[in-house]
Amino acid sequence: MAQITLGRYLWERLHQVGIDTIFGCPGDFNLQSLDPIFQVKGLKWVGNQNELNAAYAADGYGRIKDIPGCLVTTHGVGELSALNGIAGAMSEHIKVIHVVGQTTRAMQENHMMIHHSIGYKPDHQVYQRASAELRFASAQLWNVETAPKEIDQTIRECFIQSGPVYIFLPLDLSAEKVSADLLNTPIDLSPVIDQSAQDEAVKAITTAISSAKHPIVLVDVLAKRFGASTEVRDLTKKLKVPIFSANMGKGIVDWTDENWMGVWNGEISTPGVKEEAKKNDLVITLGYLPADTNTAGFSRKLADESTIHINPSNVVVKGKTYPNTTIKSLLSALTAALPSTPQHTAIPKATLPPPREPLDKDATDITQSSLWPSIQAFLQPHDIILTETGTSTFGICDIPFPPHTTYETQIYYGSIGWATGATLGAEIARREMSEKTGIKGRTLLFTGDGSMAMTIQEVGTMIKAGLKNIIFVINNEGYTIERLIWGASEAYNDITPTSYAHLLPLYHHPSPSTSYHHAKTKSELAAILAKPELQDPPHLQLVEIVVPKLDTSWRLASTLAWRGKEHQEYLKREGFVDTYGGWGLDGGGEDGEDGEVKWS
Amino acid sequence: MAQITLGRYLWERLHQVGIDTIFGCPGDFNLQSLDPIFQVKGLKWVGNQNELNAAYAADGYGRIKDIPGCLVTTHGVGELSALNGIAGAMSEHIKVIHVVGQTTRAMQENHMMIHHSIGYKPDHQVYQRASAELRFASAQLWNVETAPKEIDQTIRECFIQSGPVYIFLPLDLSAEKVSADLLNTPIDLSPVIDQSAQDEAVKAITTAISSAKHPIVLVDVLAKRFGASTEVRDLTKKLKVPIFSANMGKGIVDWTDENWMGVWNGEISTPGVKEEAKKNDLVITLGYLPADTNTAGFSRKLADESTIHINPSNVVVKGKTYPNTTIKSLLSALTAALPSTPQHTAIPKATLPPPREPLDKDATDITQSSLWPSIQAFLQPHDIILTETGTSTFGICDIPFPPHTTYETQIYYGSIGWATGATLGAEIARREMSEKTGIKGRTLLFTGDGSMAMTIQEVGTMIKAGLKNIIFVINNEGYTIERLIWGASEAYNDITPTSYAHLLPLYHHPSPSTSYHHAKTKSELAAILAKPELQDPPHLQLVEIVVPKLDTSWRLASTLAWRGKEHQEYLKREGFVDTYGGWGLDGGGEDGEDGEVKWS
Repeated sequence: MAQITLGRYLWERLHQVGIDTIFGCPGDFNLQSLDPIFQVKGLKWVGNQNELNAAYAADGYGRIKDIPGCLVTTHGVGELSALNGIAGAMSEHIKVIHVVGQTTRAMQENHMMIHHSIGYKPDHQVYQRASAELRFASAQLWNVETAPKEIDQTIRECFIQSGPVYIFLPLDLSAEKVSADLLNTPIDLSPVIDQSAQDEAVKAITTAISSAKHPIVLVDVLAKRFGASTEVRDLTKKLKVPIFSANMGKGIVDWTDENWMGVWNGEISTPGVKEEAKKNDLVITLGYLPADTNTAGFSRKLADESTIHINPSNVVVKGKTYPNTTIKSLLSALTAALPSTPQHTAIPKATLPPPREPLDKDATDITQSSLWPSIQAFLQPHDIILTETGTSTFGICDIPFPPHTTYETQIYYGSIGWATGATLGAEIARREMSEKTGIKGRTLLFTGDGSMAMTIQEVGTMIKAGLKNIIFVINNEGYTIERLIWGASEAYNDITPTSYAHLLPLYHHPSPSTSYHHAKTKSELAAILAKPELQDPPHLQLVEIVVPKLDTSWRLASTLAWRGKEHQEYLKREGFVDTYGGWGLDGGGEDGEDGEVKWS
Repeated sequence: MAQITLGRYLWERLHQVGIDTIFGCPGDFNLQSLDPIFQVKGLKWVGNQNELNAAYAADGYGRIKDIPGCLVTTHGVGELSALNGIAGAMSEHIKVIHVVGQTTRAMQENHMMIHHSIGYKPDHQVYQRASAELRFASAQLWNVETAPKEIDQTIRECFIQSGPVYIFLPLDLSAEKVSADLLNTPIDLSPVIDQSAQDEAVKAITTAISSAKHPIVLVDVLAKRFGASTEVRDLTKKLKVPIFSANMGKGIVDWTDENWMGVWNGEISTPGVKEEAKKNDLVITLGYLPADTNTAGFSRKLADESTIHINPSNVVVKGKTYPNTTIKSLLSALTAALPSTPQHTAIPKATLPPPREPLDKDATDITQSSLWPSIQAFLQPHDIILTETGTSTFGICDIPFPPHTTYETQIYYGSIGWATGATLGAEIARREMSEKTGIKGRTLLFTGDGSMAMTIQEVGTMIKAGLKNIIFVINNEGYTIERLIWGASEAYNDITPTSYAHLLPLYHHPSPSTSYHHAKTKSELAAILAKPELQDPPHLQLVEIVVPKLDTSWRLASTLAWRGKEHQEYLKREGFVDTYGGWGLDGGGEDGEDGEVKWS
């Protein structure tokens, strides 16, 4: 019977479920475990500049391939550095496997004062307990007899629950042997379907849809996270009712779909969209994630009696919960159960008003009001877009995407710096998929100068790996999103000035002068976007876009204005640029109107 | 009765105990709490590029001033990013106060899906539980009536236990009012002294010393951490017995002290030192921290029957424990209790053999064997030196320090990237102290290219703050310390190549061309070290020192060789440069000799 090391077993298993790249940083408690990565055919190593960035990269990779991203860190120091990235994956239901190389079992049992420990008789398990509530499952490997099964079960949980899991691997254990035959049985990654629970839920849903006059669909991100994007599109094609999405659900249904209406971001929506949405007598949400940042401050009110929520693991029909369902299987069954002739053809096709024109449309310099329309024209089918939690995520809301666009943002967890690390993972995922499918696409990052600073060294990893993504840095002299919230001109919202022209040479970019671009005016940006380097990047491209410090998208300002009169006065007093002449038009409730959120 | 906000109260209290600079990153759950920082006279804000770096900066600041370093982060995302830095402070007993701006109490009570949360009915306390075992105390503020007392008590614990504490401050609470009169009573920072426990311990120690013929003192880092450096020096001056230190205890007693012998790093010591140390019939340890990295792999064997351990909170005399003591008070009482005439004048003054000469002493290029003697000549009294856990910390062991040198390393926790962040804090602390005392000094960082990458953006913060520290980057093409352990030529030990000439311009350094220096040869390095910019830096200086990839200090190689014959063969096979012609001379036990550590 052929034998392999447990380390080899682990990497083979991860490769079997679709992982082609392992991220991470070496450390003396994982080094020997890293060797077998290079023995697995088709599996590659991409080392990161630090562990938090590795976690973000694994997150980005997992998002694009809809399989786990994987990172390896070392005991304590590496493991904890990555923790915030893992918590983000937990919040956003991203499949991530964090392999931690632990001290040897003997060191642990003897409470040895090995470096990376705490105290005189250190408990080496203190670090894994820190992540206990920030993961869906873990394999705390100790015994080689049971380890393969524990690994398999943990990988399965990563898929089933769609979120981060840990595999803790003591250094000495990784060299012990297991049977290679174990690899012949694939890990079962399918959830268990409770057929009767599903049947009951489908019946309740179809009944509710039949009795509605004006149902609409609200597509959101958890449908994608649980692998049901195709099922969402199949359902909407058969339903033929108006389709809206939340911010985070943007891109799951193509803009070119005949029933597509737009991003219904509660009270802070593109003109006409919320009015159309509110005509409904039934909202069917698919994978809804009603965080403040995905509901314009909880302003998308959905009444129980006129709502069906199809959640990842249950269904709620007009307030009644049907438990034990799984969204992918349920949507498939629902589509099959619907009558082949659409029931709601009477709903008139709406025409949205034309987009509002900004007051500064004739200005020479770039502001957020002109930036996003410029980007709209630049997008191509099959682009992968990542926006940071900042002005970018709000700014991009308005613009239509070409077909087959993939869009990722992390606006529930909202950890700035994420987008740069995630772009590394996303672009590697794109490259891997492109090698198999021949579809090219580009990976585009939109971030700000404040966010960029957090994880800037990962640009070096991108360059070293020969990646071709495009980084757009909106340079607005600091944390503009924080300035909008509080302390518009306070020193704590300033950042360290950065001369981005030096970033590519710092990391030995092969062609820095043709790959760094700087735009302050609209015409400069137009010229840059038309360049062949941007249309089909031969190397990583960096585009710095300078906008005024207090410039903001109308949507972000309106979201803040929605907090109440007091905040509206703050925005006016501090001199934020209102490029549309009145945030109060689309946002801006009365103080306390919302009733649920008191901010300070 | 004058009223102030709770936020103002917090910052005033922190300033009262000696904190003049607050580090951190803004976030929407701490913004309003940051405002009163600027109202406290003499208190400054230094924003960091990310939260892990802020934690390292606070750690470095705390080390130099021997008061808490303080950082502020925001709920979840910032808080977790800093966690590894906090765990390092825990491991190394560094006073750090981590203020976390939490979501409002209403948001928490209503389990609102506010950004930075996890799940449908989020528990906002999940993040503070992650750090529960990685702090000595915390104030989980909720009620304004009790909050001032909880803040005071937590600051006190930071001092008493010498380690990290947390103050969790819900956003809305920081604006509530407390009486300003509370500030008039200083926080009691002194430990409670159990006089009878101390008397008993002192008696046992003086008895043991009297009956010894050849006692020696081993100074270590925990004496410094618990504020007892002066008491250590007073004791050794009165004892007049040979003084040794562990790696981490280097610099507490001056090299010029007449009884100073050297760094006794177990079997891996400078020639002659361990032989002198082993002549003892009694070792008195002061603040001993017997981690693997501070004992050359547990090779400094101290027998119970001939050892007195004076630990932070107890004393162990020849195996018998005397609890409930505090090191600072105890050392003071011990010194007072000793006879005024030294008892051990019969111990002959030893003469150490001359330093060994490296085989490559006539080479043109720099290797570790020539680097550290060059640095020795460069040091000035009152320099503050930080070395990263890498080739630097091992290499610097051999060289004598001028009087009044402060030396910091983090070799128990050993989180690479720490030293760059800590240097920011250390240099700010030096500047603050210099403004008061007029003593100048310089802050010198010795790090490697691999470690530098982890936290490189903090160089920007240094430049923005106008700091004048000197950064020496030993560029050896990757993680050389890992290569020595395993995978000498494996891809996972490579890092992203970095062109350091671009680092200063990236962050708008005022004079980059005169402040970046590059040395590959000994003569280049000598010329650089002699420059006025290095002798008395007008701005931050960056010195890149290129050494071969597999070059190492004899001490680091010997420490690894100590693991056994198998590892010695590994080092030889992989081509590491043995510049002294035989690591086995000073290290290199037989396989399993050590008996306690099996590495894989």
